[in-house]
Amino acid sequence: AKPRVGYFHLQDNSYLAEINKLYTKEVAEVKSVPVVVTEKTSIYNAITTLFLEDVGSLFVVDEEDKNLVGVISRKDLLKITIGDADINQVPVSVAMTRMPNIITIRADDTVLLAAKRLVNYEIDALPVVENFIDESGEPLEDKLKVIGRVSKTNITRVLADLGLEM
Amino acid sequence: AKPRVGYFHLQDNSYLAEINKLYTKEVAEVKSVPVVVTEKTSIYNAITTLFLEDVGSLFVVDEEDKNLVGVISRKDLLKITIGDADINQVPVSVAMTRMPNIITIRADDTVLLAAKRLVNYEIDALPVVENFIDESGEPLEDKLKVIGRVSKTNITRVLADLGLEM
Repeated sequence: AKPRVGYFHLQDNSYLAEINKLYTKEVAEVKSVPVVVTEKTSIYNAITTLFLEDVGSLFVVDEEDKNLVGVISRKDLLKITIGDADINQVPVSVAMTRMPNIITIRADDTVLLAAKRLVNYEIDALPVVENFIDESGEPLEDKLKVIGRVSKTNITRVLADLGLEM
Repeated sequence: AKPRVGYFHLQDNSYLAEINKLYTKEVAEVKSVPVVVTEKTSIYNAITTLFLEDVGSLFVVDEEDKNLVGVISRKDLLKITIGDADINQVPVSVAMTRMPNIITIRADDTVLLAAKRLVNYEIDALPVVENFIDESGEPLEDKLKVIGRVSKTNITRVLADLGLEM
């Protein structure tokens, strides 16, 4: 059968299904477990956590409220480590990117939006967040709970898995 | 018009074109300029290069032949920096991943294959290589010339650009 205008012959329907999934896939489907430290964690312990958990960025939360206060990357850690600081004493709060400069994503946002944010803001990982809820059930606007992590690794995996259909 | 079995109605042909490009796109179209140091470069200078060039991995070449001998990542640099080594004296060759353990890619391989390798081998960047040619015009099997870099950033950008069509 010849392809007609407006129609396209698909030899493999799974190919189409994969493509459709790509356009609708949500962050919730691809996110990883977040690796979190508190503001008072030392640079040295943060580096240890980075290696033990095998991630590229750590999310920093307030010790009491557990709300998101910072993100610290391999490069942030490398920069402070080559300086004069005593990395056993200095806390991650000194070297991290702080709120409100942290770029976040929501679980029901698309993977494509996550990809755009990672590229546009030149970052390696986005914390997946939701608002903390106050006693009356209202969302607290400035208090973000970290519920996941989406990195360039997760995005690359989406494309790699698509390739399985080749 | 109702979709029929084996056909799919496409409201937007650019969407199809984008998808097709995704399956056929080659590394040559998305690769970045490689950032290269020699085996004798100090850890400290490698770190400086990493920040100046704004990359996550450096490729290490032989000082004379310029063939690929290693790859050094942010984590390799971080690991040696928190140790006892004098990072102004110690060369990158001490901390790098060496040939033949380096995963590479060719310019005419697909972006999907690059994505698979990045995920499967858990690395951040692949050197794009070609063989050096000897005097008689034959490719030298073990001598690889670095002609580019494909990282998870390049892959994420492919997906982010696809999203422009949404």
